[in-house]
This record gives sequence, C-alpha cells and structure tokens, in this order.
Amino acid sequence: MAKGVMTRSEDYAQWYNDLVIKGGLADYSAVRGCMVIKPYGYGLWENMRDVLDKMFKDTGHQNAYFPLFVPRSLFEAEEANAEGFAKECAVVTHYRLKSDPENKGKLIVDPEAKLEEELIVRPTSEAVIWNTYKDWIQSYRDLPILINQWANVVRWEMRTRLFLRTTEFLWQEGHTAHATSDEAIIETTKMLDVYATFAEEYMALPVIKGKKSPAERFAGAEDTYCIEALMQDGKALQAGTSHFLGQNFAKAFDVKYLTKENKLEYVWATSWGVSTRLIGALVMAHGDDEGLILPPKIAPVQVVLIPIYKGEEQKSELDAKAKDIFESLKGLGIRVKYDDNDNNRPGWKFAEYELKGVPVRITLGARDLQNGIVEVARRDTKQKENISYDGLVNHVQTLLVEIQQGMYDKAKTYRDEHTTKVDTWSDFEKVLDEKTGFVLAHWDGTEETETRIKEQTKATIRCIPLDNKKEEGVCILTGKPSSQRVLFARAY
Amino acid sequence: MAKGVMTRSEDYAQWYNDLVIKGGLADYSAVRGCMVIKPYGYGLWENMRDVLDKMFKDTGHQNAYFPLFVPRSLFEAEEANAEGFAKECAVVTHYRLKSDPENKGKLIVDPEAKLEEELIVRPTSEAVIWNTYKDWIQSYRDLPILINQWANVVRWEMRTRLFLRTTEFLWQEGHTAHATSDEAIIETTKMLDVYATFAEEYMALPVIKGKKSPAERFAGAEDTYCIEALMQDGKALQAGTSHFLGQNFAKAFDVKYLTKENKLEYVWATSWGVSTRLIGALVMAHGDDEGLILPPKIAPVQVVLIPIYKGEEQKSELDAKAKDIFESLKGLGIRVKYDDNDNNRPGWKFAEYELKGVPVRITLGARDLQNGIVEVARRDTKQKENISYDGLVNHVQTLLVEIQQGMYDKAKTYRDEHTTKVDTWSDFEKVLDEKTGFVLAHWDGTEETETRIKEQTKATIRCIPLDNKKEEGVCILTGKPSSQRVLFARAY
Repeated sequence: MAKGVMTRSEDYAQWYNDLVIKGGLADYSAVRGCMVIKPYGYGLWENMRDVLDKMFKDTGHQNAYFPLFVPRSLFEAEEANAEGFAKECAVVTHYRLKSDPENKGKLIVDPEAKLEEELIVRPTSEAVIWNTYKDWIQSYRDLPILINQWANVVRWEMRTRLFLRTTEFLWQEGHTAHATSDEAIIETTKMLDVYATFAEEYMALPVIKGKKSPAERFAGAEDTYCIEALMQDGKALQAGTSHFLGQNFAKAFDVKYLTKENKLEYVWATSWGVSTRLIGALVMAHGDDEGLILPPKIAPVQVVLIPIYKGEEQKSELDAKAKDIFESLKGLGIRVKYDDNDNNRPGWKFAEYELKGVPVRITLGARDLQNGIVEVARRDTKQKENISYDGLVNHVQTLLVEIQQGMYDKAKTYRDEHTTKVDTWSDFEKVLDEKTGFVLAHWDGTEETETRIKEQTKATIRCIPLDNKKEEGVCILTGKPSSQRVLFARAY
Repeated sequence: MAKGVMTRSEDYAQWYNDLVIKGGLADYSAVRGCMVIKPYGYGLWENMRDVLDKMFKDTGHQNAYFPLFVPRSLFEAEEANAEGFAKECAVVTHYRLKSDPENKGKLIVDPEAKLEEELIVRPTSEAVIWNTYKDWIQSYRDLPILINQWANVVRWEMRTRLFLRTTEFLWQEGHTAHATSDEAIIETTKMLDVYATFAEEYMALPVIKGKKSPAERFAGAEDTYCIEALMQDGKALQAGTSHFLGQNFAKAFDVKYLTKENKLEYVWATSWGVSTRLIGALVMAHGDDEGLILPPKIAPVQVVLIPIYKGEEQKSELDAKAKDIFESLKGLGIRVKYDDNDNNRPGWKFAEYELKGVPVRITLGARDLQNGIVEVARRDTKQKENISYDGLVNHVQTLLVEIQQGMYDKAKTYRDEHTTKVDTWSDFEKVLDEKTGFVLAHWDGTEETETRIKEQTKATIRCIPLDNKKEEGVCILTGKPSSQRVLFARAY
C-alpha cells in the first residue's frame, strides 16, 4: 500500500480518488462539480487527444470550433434532445455585474443587463452545429461534412466524481452530415471502431462494442452505439458513444439538400464523442494498491531514471551515465525523465513514480554502474531485472511493448472471467452481487422489463453486443421469449 | 479583385470581413458576437497553437486545465481585476430549464433552480487559478509554477468583429508563480520575447515590443508588456500581452510560501496570453484585393496542385505525375493538396486558392508535362515561372522560405515607412489623418494628457518601446518636459 493511498478492498471509491489526486492527475476546485486537471493528468489527456485526433484526420475529418453558448430557441428546436438535457444545464441570464451599493468592494448581478433570450452553456453541440450546417449545405456537392470539435461542455450533474462525472468536462464531438441513411450508418460504426481501436490498442482497455437499448439512447438519436469496459470492482463503464441521428436534427433545423436528381431531401446525421471520462476508466481498469499503472503508449512519462549515490563525486559520475541513457532513450522518441532532485530520497521517489504509474523505472547505482549494469523495474508486474548497460536501450524499447500488451491481456482476462452467462433470475442476482461483472442474459425486449430489472438490481443493459449470436431463450425476469442475450451490468 | 471580395481602398472593413468569410476562416453564428471557426481557419489556428505550444514547453511550461466558471466571490477577490471585467461578463444564474406550461414544446428557466452564488464565465482565469495555487504552494520548493492553459474565454463586447473582438474567443493563458519579483519580471519579458519571435518568424508580422502606459495596463497588473503590429490601413493591433502581476493576486488569495530562511512571504505572479485575434492580424497585415496571403510556416495548405486537361486520357496521365509530385512534397513535410475536383474549372480554382491565400500554386498542363515543365505561381508577388520537373521539389522548398521572408520584409517596410517622428501637435494630427501608422512623439507622462489626446484624435499610446532611446523633448499636447518618445496610433 502506497503512502496515504487507500486499498481497493477496503474502500474502492476512496482508492480511486486517492489515485486521481495523489497521483497528480486532478484536483477538486472551488467550483461545484468542476475539477482542475493538473499538468500530469493534462499531459495524459494531450497524448490521448493527439492519437485520437490523428485517427479522426486519417478517416477524413477536420476540426472546427462552434460557440460555447446555445440560445434557448435553438436549444429547444430538437425536442427529444432538448428534453434530455433541459434538467441539467447551466443558463446564462445576464451579461454584466455592478458594484453592490450596500457592500463596498462586492459585486452583484446588474438587473438591467438581463438577456432577452437566455443562453445555455452547451451540454452537447448538435443544436448550434445543425443550425450552422443549414447555411453550409445546399446540394449533394456539399456532402458529406465530416467535422470534429475539441471542446468543453457543461452538464449540471447532481453527484459528481473526478473525471467520471464532472459538471464541466473536456471532450471531442464529431458531427457529420450525409446524403443517405446508409452513409450515415457506415460513419456511425466506423467511428465506433475508431474508439474501440483506441481503447484497446492505446489504453490497453478491452471493450465490447454494441448498440444501446432504445431507453438508453442519446436524446435525439435513432440508434446509439457504444463501447463498454469493465472496471476492477466489476462495474461497467461506457467509454464512448457514436450516434446515428437519422434526420431528426435536419428536420428540426430544416436542413435539406438538392440531390443529383434535383430533389430536395433532408440530410442524415451522426455524432460521436469521448471525453476526459476515459481517464477515469484508465485509473480504475489498471491501477493497484500502490497507485496508477499507465499504458506506455499514452503515459506522459514512460521511463524514469533515478540515481542512487553518496556525495558529489558519485553524483557527477552518475550524471554522465544518466545523461547518456537519457539521450539514447529520448532519441528513440521515448518520453523519459531523469529525477536527480536532491530534496527527495530514492525510496520516496520509488513510491512516487509507482503512485504515478510510470511504466518503467531505471535505477542507477554507483556500484552497479562499475559492473556495467542497471536495475530495470516494470510498474505493472513489479518485476525487476539487472540489465547490462550495452543492451539497455533495446531492452527498454521491448519492455514498453511488453508492458502495453501485458496490461491489455490482464484486463482482458479479468473481463472474460467476469463475463457470465446466466439463465435464471436467482443466478442473475447472485452473479451481480457476488461475482460481479458483465452478465449475458435473455431479455424480452421491452422497456418495462428493462426498468423493472434496473429497479430491482441496479443493473442496466449496457448494450446489445454487435457480434451477438442469435439464440432462442426466455427473459430472465418475465419468461417471455427472447432471440438473443444482452449485456447487463451495474455501471458508472 | 476576387469574386465578391471588396477592395481595400473602397471599404477596408468590408474587405476584411470578405476575406475572413469567403476565405473560409470563419462565419457568423446565431449567437450574438460569437463566431464559428471553420475547418480552414481552425487548421490555421492549430498550426499556430502547435508552434506556440512547443515554444512554451521548450521554456519549461506545462499545460493544465482550470474550470470555465468563476464563483462570484472568487471573481471579486482581486478588486482591480474584478472591476476591469465586471461590466463585460456572462453570468450563469440557473442550472435547469423546465417545460413552459403555457407553450407546449418550449422551455423556460426553472425559477427553483437558482444558484445560491452566481458563476461568471471566465473572462480570464487569474482568480480561479490563484485560488488553486493557494493549495499547491507551501514552500520555496513548490516554486516556480509554470503553467499554461489553452481555453475559451468570454467577454461581453458591445461591438464585435470576426476574430478581432468576439464575445467568446480561444486563447492560451500562462499563469506563473515565483519566489521573487526579479524572477517574475524575467518570466514576463521572456514570454514577451516568445510572442515577438512567434509573430515575426512564423506570422511574418513585425512587432514592436513595449510597456503599456499605466492607464492601459491589464486590470490587476503592476506592469503590462505588449507587442504591437501595424495593419495595412495604418491602424495598430495589440498582438499579445505579458503581465507582471506583482503580489496582487497572492494577496487577494492569501498565497504565501516559506522561504529558505523560514519566513512567510507572498508569491509573485505573471500572466500572458495570445488569442484567435492573431488570425485577424494575419488577415489584415498580409491580405490583398484577391484575398488572403498566408505565411508558409503556418498555412494549412502550403502548395496546391491543379491539373488542366481535356478528357479522361489526359487526366489519367496527369494523375500519375501529380501523385508523384504530391508524394515527393509530402515526404518533405510540405502540406500539399491535389485538387482534381471535376466540378470546378481551373480558373475557378485559381481564384479560390488565391482567395484562400495558399502560398504556392503548381499548375500541371498536359502539354507542359510533355515538355517536362510545370507552372509555379507564388501567391504573395503573383510571379509565375516555368520550372522543369526535375528541379521542382527543391524549387518549391526554397520558394516557401523565400515567400516567408518576403512577406516579413514587405510588412516590415510598410511598418517602417509608416512610423513617423513628430514634434508638434499639428503634425501629430496630420500624420494620424493623412499618412496614418505609428507616431513617435513626446508625452508628459500623465494620464490626463493621455486621455485628452485620445479624446481629440482617437489615438492611444500603444506602448513605450523597450528599446527606446532617452531623449529630452516636450509633450506634443501640453509642452511639458518629456524624457522619451512613446508610440501612438489609432488601434483595433
């Protein structure tokens, strides 16, 4: 157990908060439900963002930027979407403060600066974007529009958790416009695949791709696709969504295009997003009681070099060797840090970088160096090896690849071991309570049953997996016929 | 004159708007004073951001992210800062909408969801950041803190102009904390130098570095440094500011640190920022009556390849050659686009890429290719040359460097020719009205005189140049003694 970090078994929620805060990812702020993303956490987000951004551009998308505010009349135009977000949005009503006549040095809202129409701080940008697309789309030649936006959004959540559910969060939102329904559906699933690839190959996070049940769809969508991951406490976490919006927004904002055959038709839409919530998934999927464990591909620091020495003479010898190693690793594009800060002892540093989840630690001891070796420790398995100075750089390169793969394999094994087929109600409840994890069970397909299951067990349908086999069965709750199993879990 | 673009001489303001909108940089939005940054404009911003971000990181800064909202009580803590921004801020007062009982399908603000304390949408983040630094700083070991944030901010401007002054804009804001006044001042001027280097070397925009007069300082600053650029209509534009904040924010938020000598002292602060306003400067400094002229180093597209052909056979021959050239240029890291879109004629494309300011155009004609040559046109001087296919790639590489330098030189010559020393009030007025540009004149150093000059001429003191020679003289307005000339201009 690391300094001041709770263990998972004792208090999982506290363990999570400890890793986020003491691991240096984020901090609470003075603003209700909002967090400060600290440099280490933001560095992680930058790495994730850069990979995703490249994947978006490689699939033909461009970035743009749309306003933070949505005028109320635009916000309410697509009714299902508006209804879905109305209860949790921050509303700007005034545009000026003035001195409080009764309290010197204090400010009050100036009642004379009331807006004629309130502005909603965007919880998502479909409304403001489709109102813009209306001006950009006249004919089939203007389609498709493939745009992504990196932005902050605000949803007034009652209960917040660092990264997992914050009032303000950072995300990307793709918004595309297409001539046909088919094209839009292809885009929706293509971006779901991008998310799944990113989660598995970069975050070392195995995910299940699926469709949401109608009740769990995004407000305003015809179909919501998602990727679902499993955390170490056996709860599921939705890690990304991709929506087929049909013509709902085109109709709400009157966006039509002239087809090649000279007919006016409504445009088809998709939207898709992932957010800083992914960092929460990363923490919970991989961390241990010593701290964070970050996948090498996105870790802000991949390798830390720590010198152990007595006195200035040993220090300067080590410095020379360390700089050598540092430059060799850096030259290969490895993100490496040399921590020769005198204020902290080696033991403190070991614990600190374990807490921060740095994948590889290299310890440089004065005596070992004379023997031409250094100690290399990997964070995920805690294995240590003495490696000769000659082979070090190659070893580290290989090790980073192994750690990335090992983390994925471990998470996958856990996920597979915690995915259970059940056929009876009592097994369903028992697995949720005792074994936890994903449960594959038959459901009669009605929203009523879905709601009853949720009320009785707190489990929700995470998704209907895309690769599902059709299989005759009966609903675990009602005994009515069902043609396939769906994926249940308690979830974040 | 390009398709539908106003000329500078006829209506400079309209010319500017035409370049921004028809050049594809930005568009008006449905939200008062807010703009949509279109993919081409955002691509330009991404290039600018990436260069600046690297410069910040190379000077030891890290990125982080702080909340969008500032609770009113934090906002008002530093009085000068609060007073400076109180009159132009968007205020969130409610966190929920509800159905309008009198209007089906419409929403109203839910009066029961009124916030106990209003939230200000950040116009700048000193308050929320220094309230956080309070928790991060205990001893000299925690200093310096060198953090930058890329974010959106909101200032409720009465008159808005695309890029130059918008209600919401994108920017970066650096916020640093130091143990001593000296260190903070060094940081302030170091970041001013970063801005000047960026403007001159990447934006091809010559700037004058200086200090603001006390009246023009950032609200809450002890000293404001700035870079000032000159636009083609002879008006100045402030292109970046760097503030020495003294201990004002440390005192307002009670941020003290324990010195090595075990004494408690207030921390010293700086902040510095540039914004999407820079794109406005780019447009106005370099554009001509045909459209934008973008500096190669930051242009989203550096080279456009346009084929001229008749029929499919010629097309496929050209395609092969074009792909060859395309890949060669791309391989050198040049941002190149091949426009073989059949919907538009070559003449239309020529005008389009001139309007968009693409630095180099290569025209591939079927006959020329047989002779082993292509036509290369540079956007800035409109010079065209036939270049042999063999030397093309090298030629383009050299040309991009020449264009970058040529644009800077041209802007510098214009700036120097429009910087005038004057010694009398009548000359001062005459130069401002007729020759326009920067005016170097003596000022008696009082705010009263500064205000009178502004009221009578609309000219403001842009800065007191850092490299100013001390020189005895008398104030152009009052005749009182003065020890140096300061830089006046009418400004954006």
